Amino acid sequence: MSKRLSQVLSFGAASLVLLGACEQTSSKEQTTDRPTPTLSEADKPLHTQATALFKPLPPTMPGAESFTPAKVALGKQLFHEPRLSKSGALSCNSCHNLASWGVDNRPTSIGHGFQTGERNSPTVLNAGLHTAQFWDLRAKDLAEQAKGPILNPVEMAMPDEALVVKRLSSIPAYVESFRKAFPNVEQALSYENTAQAIAAFERTLLTPSRFDAFLTGDGSALTAEEKKGLQTFMSKGCTACHSGPAIGGALAQKFGVVKPYKHARDLGRFTQTQVEADKFVFKVPSLRNIEKTYPYFHDGKVWSLEEAVTTMAETQLGQPLTPQETSEIVTFLKTLTGTLPEDALKLPILPASGPDTPQPQI
Amino acid sequence: MSKRLSQVLSFGAASLVLLGACEQTSSKEQTTDRPTPTLSEADKPLHTQATALFKPLPPTMPGAESFTPAKVALGKQLFHEPRLSKSGALSCNSCHNLASWGVDNRPTSIGHGFQTGERNSPTVLNAGLHTAQFWDLRAKDLAEQAKGPILNPVEMAMPDEALVVKRLSSIPAYVESFRKAFPNVEQALSYENTAQAIAAFERTLLTPSRFDAFLTGDGSALTAEEKKGLQTFMSKGCTACHSGPAIGGALAQKFGVVKPYKHARDLGRFTQTQVEADKFVFKVPSLRNIEKTYPYFHDGKVWSLEEAVTTMAETQLGQPLTPQETSEIVTFLKTLTGTLPEDALKLPILPASGPDTPQPQI
Repeated sequence: MSKRLSQVLSFGAASLVLLGACEQTSSKEQTTDRPTPTLSEADKPLHTQATALFKPLPPTMPGAESFTPAKVALGKQLFHEPRLSKSGALSCNSCHNLASWGVDNRPTSIGHGFQTGERNSPTVLNAGLHTAQFWDLRAKDLAEQAKGPILNPVEMAMPDEALVVKRLSSIPAYVESFRKAFPNVEQALSYENTAQAIAAFERTLLTPSRFDAFLTGDGSALTAEEKKGLQTFMSKGCTACHSGPAIGGALAQKFGVVKPYKHARDLGRFTQTQVEADKFVFKVPSLRNIEKTYPYFHDGKVWSLEEAVTTMAETQLGQPLTPQETSEIVTFLKTLTGTLPEDALKLPILPASGPDTPQPQI
Repeated sequence: MSKRLSQVLSFGAASLVLLGACEQTSSKEQTTDRPTPTLSEADKPLHTQATALFKPLPPTMPGAESFTPAKVALGKQLFHEPRLSKSGALSCNSCHNLASWGVDNRPTSIGHGFQTGERNSPTVLNAGLHTAQFWDLRAKDLAEQAKGPILNPVEMAMPDEALVVKRLSSIPAYVESFRKAFPNVEQALSYENTAQAIAAFERTLLTPSRFDAFLTGDGSALTAEEKKGLQTFMSKGCTACHSGPAIGGALAQKFGVVKPYKHARDLGRFTQTQVEADKFVFKVPSLRNIEKTYPYFHDGKVWSLEEAVTTMAETQLGQPLTPQETSEIVTFLKTLTGTLPEDALKLPILPASGPDTPQPQI
C-alpha cells in the first residue's frame, strides 16, 4: 500500500470516530422530535448487527469549515454560479444536479466545448462524509475538490484562479457576501474561499432515509423484504467496504480484487501515485441514494443497479449471487434513498454582473 | 404590414383587454393583504398618466392552459428535465435559468455540441403575457414555443418528437404524473402535453415589483428619482412600444425605425414571412427585470443597460438622450426588478429513469 493511500485510510478511520460522536447528538435530537421508536424482539438481532456496521447520518456534517448561514448561502450561490466557468454556461450544479440527486445521470459529464471527462461525476450528496474526494482520492476534502473542475480544461475551463477572482470581484453583491462569509479576513474574496464556501454549502447536503430511522431504533421503518435485503447485504460481506454513515466513502479499494472488472481500463489511483499497488484502486463510493445515481462505477458504464450489485459480488467478493439474492440486496439499497434539506433545494438568486465583469467566452 | 403580423398585433390587443380585466381582481386582492396604499396630491398626475399606459401584473396569468397544481408541478419537472435533450445534459433551465432571472446572461445560448444559436435567449419570466413567443413571434404561445428548442439541432437536439415521448414514457413516475396532469385524456403523455405542462409552469413565473405597488396606488413604493425616471420614460415616448402589464411584449416593431441599429444583420421576422415590411422586425421585449437580463437585444450584443437605452432612443425615437436622461430612465427601469414566486424557485426532484429509458447521446 502506498504511503499516501495509508494516510488517506487512517484519515478515514479518524473520520469515522468523529462521525460516531456526532451521531449520538443526532439520536438525542431525533427522539425529541419523533415518537419513541419501536423495535420488536425479532428485529433486535438484525438491528444490533446493523448498528455495529452502519451509523445514521449525523444531524450536521463534521468538518473543518465553519457553518455560518452567510457562508452556506454564498456557497449555494457559487454552487449554481455559471460564471465560474469560462463559457458562463456551466456551474457545479450542471454535473452535480441537485434536482437529480447530485449527479447528471450520464456516464461521464459534459464540460467546456462539449468535451466529456474520463470518470463518472459522483454525487455531492453526503460527500462531506467521505474520507477524501474524487474517485482516486486525490483531494483531501470538499474545498480541495471544488477547486478542480473550475480550472479543468474539459470541465469548467477557467484559464486560471486569477480570472475566477476577477469575475467574482467585479460583481458587487459577491464582494459583500464574501466579506460577510469570511469576516475579519484581509482577502475575503479569494479562490480558496470560493472553494471553502462551496464546501460549506455541500456540507449541508445530508439525505437521511428510512434506513437511518431503522438504525435509530424504528423497526417499522423497513419492510420485512427490506430487512431481509439488509441481512443479505451484511451476510454476503458487502459491508467489508460499504459501512459507516455513508455506507461507503471511507476506503479505497481495488476494483477487481477477485476477478477483473469487465470494463477495466482506467488505472485509478495509480495515475496519481504511480505505485503498482494502486492500480485499479478507486474510492469505495457511498451507497446512499444509489438507486438514483446511475450509471454506476467510476466509468459510468453500468446502468442497472442489479448488474452493479452482481458485478461487485463477483469482482470484489468472488461469490456469484442468485437472482433472488441480488433482488434482496437491491431492495435494501433502495431504503438508502433519502431526502434533501428543503433549504438546499431552494434555488438561490444570483447577483448581477457589474460593468467590468469579464464576459463569457467560448 | 404582413397579414400574419396584423393578426399577431390584433391578438396582442385582445390580450391587453383580457389583462386589464384580470388586473382589477389583482387590485382587490392586494388591498385585503396590505395597508391601503397612499398617493400624495403631488404623485397623482404621474400616477394617472402611468396607469393609463401600464398595468400591474395580474395575480395569475391569463391563458388557455388550465392551472391544476398537478400540471404546474409536472411542468416544473419538465422545465428542469435534461432528458428532454439528446445529451441528457440540457434542460429549459440551462438557457432560461431561474437563478438568473430566466436567462443565461450570454449573448446567445450554448446548445448541443456547444453550438450557439443566432439569437439571445429571452427570459421566461412573465413571458406568458407576451402576444407571441420568440423574437420573430413565430410561436403563438408558450406551449408552441416550448416545442421548438427541444427539437432544434443547435439547442436540445432531440431527433424527433417520438424519442421525447419514448424517453418520458419509459420513466414510470412521469407516466403517472401525466395521467394526473391530463386526466380523462386517452394519450396523456404526448409531445403536445409535454409542452402544455411546461407552459403551465411558465405561466406561474410572474415577478411583481415596486412598480406594481406604485401602479396600485402606493406612492411610497418609488423614490423621487425613480418617479422622475418614470416621467422621463413616458415623456420621451418609450411607452409607444413598452406599455401594458409586461411593459413591452405586446407588439412587433422594426429595430431601426429612424436610424439603423449599428449591429443590424439579423432580418428578424422577415426570415419567417419573406415580406419586405418585416425586415428587421422583432418582438418588443418586456422590460420587466431588464436590469438583470443582459446582454440586450435579439443578438445580445449590448451589455450595458445605459447603452441599450440610448440605442433605443436613437434608432427608434430619433432623439438622442442626455446622459442625465439616460440615467433617469435606467433608474426607473430598475424598479421593474421583481420577485419570483417561492414555489417556482424550489427545485423539483426529477424521477429516476426506468430500465428501458433510451440513454443520452453525444
